[in-house]
Amino acid sequence: MKDLLEIDGARLWQSLADMARVGATPRGGVRRLALTDDDRRGRDLFAQWCRDAGMTVSVDAVGNLFARRDGTDAQAAPVLIGSHLDTQPEGGRFDGVYGVLAALELVRTLNDAGIATGKPLEIVSWTNEEGARFAPAMLGSAVFTGALPLDDALAKQDADGVTLGAALDACGYRGTRTMGGAVDAYFEAHIEQGPVLEANGTTIGIVTGGQAIRWLDVTVTGVAAHAGTTPMPYRKDAYFASAQMAIELERIVAGHAPRGLATIGQVGIRNASRNTIAGETTFTVDLRHHDDAQVDAMERDLRDACTRVAAARGVQVTIDTCWRSPATPFDRDCVQRVAQAAAAFGYTNERIVSGAGHDAILLARCVPTAMVFIPCVDGLSHNEAEDALPADVTRGTNVLLHAVLARAGVEAGIAAGVAAAATTQDA
Amino acid sequence: MKDLLEIDGARLWQSLADMARVGATPRGGVRRLALTDDDRRGRDLFAQWCRDAGMTVSVDAVGNLFARRDGTDAQAAPVLIGSHLDTQPEGGRFDGVYGVLAALELVRTLNDAGIATGKPLEIVSWTNEEGARFAPAMLGSAVFTGALPLDDALAKQDADGVTLGAALDACGYRGTRTMGGAVDAYFEAHIEQGPVLEANGTTIGIVTGGQAIRWLDVTVTGVAAHAGTTPMPYRKDAYFASAQMAIELERIVAGHAPRGLATIGQVGIRNASRNTIAGETTFTVDLRHHDDAQVDAMERDLRDACTRVAAARGVQVTIDTCWRSPATPFDRDCVQRVAQAAAAFGYTNERIVSGAGHDAILLARCVPTAMVFIPCVDGLSHNEAEDALPADVTRGTNVLLHAVLARAGVEAGIAAGVAAAATTQDA
Repeated sequence: MKDLLEIDGARLWQSLADMARVGATPRGGVRRLALTDDDRRGRDLFAQWCRDAGMTVSVDAVGNLFARRDGTDAQAAPVLIGSHLDTQPEGGRFDGVYGVLAALELVRTLNDAGIATGKPLEIVSWTNEEGARFAPAMLGSAVFTGALPLDDALAKQDADGVTLGAALDACGYRGTRTMGGAVDAYFEAHIEQGPVLEANGTTIGIVTGGQAIRWLDVTVTGVAAHAGTTPMPYRKDAYFASAQMAIELERIVAGHAPRGLATIGQVGIRNASRNTIAGETTFTVDLRHHDDAQVDAMERDLRDACTRVAAARGVQVTIDTCWRSPATPFDRDCVQRVAQAAAAFGYTNERIVSGAGHDAILLARCVPTAMVFIPCVDGLSHNEAEDALPADVTRGTNVLLHAVLARAGVEAGIAAGVAAAATTQDA
Repeated sequence: MKDLLEIDGARLWQSLADMARVGATPRGGVRRLALTDDDRRGRDLFAQWCRDAGMTVSVDAVGNLFARRDGTDAQAAPVLIGSHLDTQPEGGRFDGVYGVLAALELVRTLNDAGIATGKPLEIVSWTNEEGARFAPAMLGSAVFTGALPLDDALAKQDADGVTLGAALDACGYRGTRTMGGAVDAYFEAHIEQGPVLEANGTTIGIVTGGQAIRWLDVTVTGVAAHAGTTPMPYRKDAYFASAQMAIELERIVAGHAPRGLATIGQVGIRNASRNTIAGETTFTVDLRHHDDAQVDAMERDLRDACTRVAAARGVQVTIDTCWRSPATPFDRDCVQRVAQAAAAFGYTNERIVSGAGHDAILLARCVPTAMVFIPCVDGLSHNEAEDALPADVTRGTNVLLHAVLARAGVEAGIAAGVAAAATTQDA
């Protein structure tokens, strides 16, 4: 194992630090909202690094940024590797940027070792993955995969009414590269953004897919009345009903442990006043599970419970299912490449389903796809305190390197250990 | 009983209808916010009616509007009778205005019957009772009774930054009458603003006082995290904790039935996002009971329950008691006069504690005070659909008339039945 080709962890760490200075915040985080001046500076820096590594840079009509390293097979579709450079308003130094710079480090490593791949490699940084400036999130990869029409995307507006199209022009990143096109496979390295790997003491998460997500909007209608003059038995209090529905939801999801997840992230009382009984409340429900059927079951049980609670309390409830995202399994071959690479290095690893949305989830619906997760400190993400350990950053990139090489084919200048890793079978 | 002096119900109903046209809303309600042009028009109309009834109109420095009918005893302090003419933004045709115009009808009735009282009578319309334009509510009576310094009141601002002082000037109702002064007693007629009288089939509520009110602000602090990447056992979800606390509150108040009341009127999640676990939630609690000790017990039990829930869930909870209003018993003699008048007419009646705040609650802390409640349809108030039945409007005013006469003393021109009502003993 000691002869396996390894990336330069110090060089990658330095690139991460350099990129984190673009849009750096006083509390150690990064604010690099999509297609802002800071995003442009980040893109410019990354593009220059790619050119310095001998790659050819191109940009498509939605601002997705590509850097190509040719393979020996001129006809082959590229292996795409990447993530995103944009951040949350108070984001961290690893979410997205790690996957992009890990891909760059991979190419630099191949350059240093004089290794050519059969298939071309293309690094990609997707536009507006975070959804923090323009909705929806994962906008660039949605247009690339055909899930969102280009014209719809260009017309999206930020909070100030600036369209994505205008922001692309202002930023200088509305390109002419053909949208989409043939792709051999897509690999993305990312911090886990959750606590599981760290808690389990695992270095590598072999991501087997994205979980199913279901969003519900619940409205409970009772009767607004005076808090001082209405005896309890006369009330039709929409909030106490909502609170009981929340407790029912918690009970239901416990029946789908450990993989069922339920979150009430928004709650409101219409015309809320401290001394008025809630006449109407709304709350959101976010349901997730690896298995679509389990999400269906949770939704059904919640609907039944809400109906029971409402009937018992004399209030009305309506539940609108406003988004269904099915479970998205990753490609068996690509996942296997990741597992083999982790095993070849002897890194502790476990199979994990991505809880968050990623560009890879959209890619997986039309391209063989896999992801590599590494732990993040305390499971924190979307937070200026987001952090990852240098050793994990290096190991995740080593796994990415060998998974990509196994998929792309090593055609020339094989360094010691490359072939060995690519052919090691998964236990 | 048939010989008791009675008010002219049709005349009162017409005056209520005429006043309801001032600030009338398309859906049958009234919008006459304190010291607006509509409030000025309402005040002008009322003042003219009072002058037409031979009364002397005066205004104090906070805009409280008085109309005096002299008694035969030039030295006696007046019996004050009134309520308020301002309304909620989408208010009804009875809240406040009923008490003011019932007082006017009472005087008109005495004029018609040629009855003089020993003590003078003063009708009062208090400024900004609703608190809908300026906070706090019951502002005019608070200044009158010394609970709120005049300068503080004049500096209060509405949502547009207009001070009460400026609004008084703009409205032409900043007067020069001496603030406060000796008062013999205060009577106020009002719709119940709750469902109890209607549900019990009772015509007259003999109000024995105001209940205790306690306002709490609860903050629950957990950890915000990603809704998709955080397994349920790792979560410190502030919202599910808050929901459980709400259910505990409902259980606690049920232990103080039927008089204990609990309302959560406002609830919020900080930085709420549909796919983020609630890191911090806040909610308000409004506790009421006739008995201060019972409110104390409910607050103590809620604090214990919240502490238990927080500990079990690994979240923190803080509870701030932001307002305590003690129970306010009304004057025994004044309440007895109301009860005797209701009994003299043979009206169904019951003793009731006021759930809402009223100017009478503030007056009761320094002046012998009582209130007369009448039913309102479906218990609705602070609503454009607020309604009351003509028969109840008339009967409540008859009770007001005889309670006031009993207190003020009938000195001349005694009509048949007045003395009888005033001396009938309560069963």
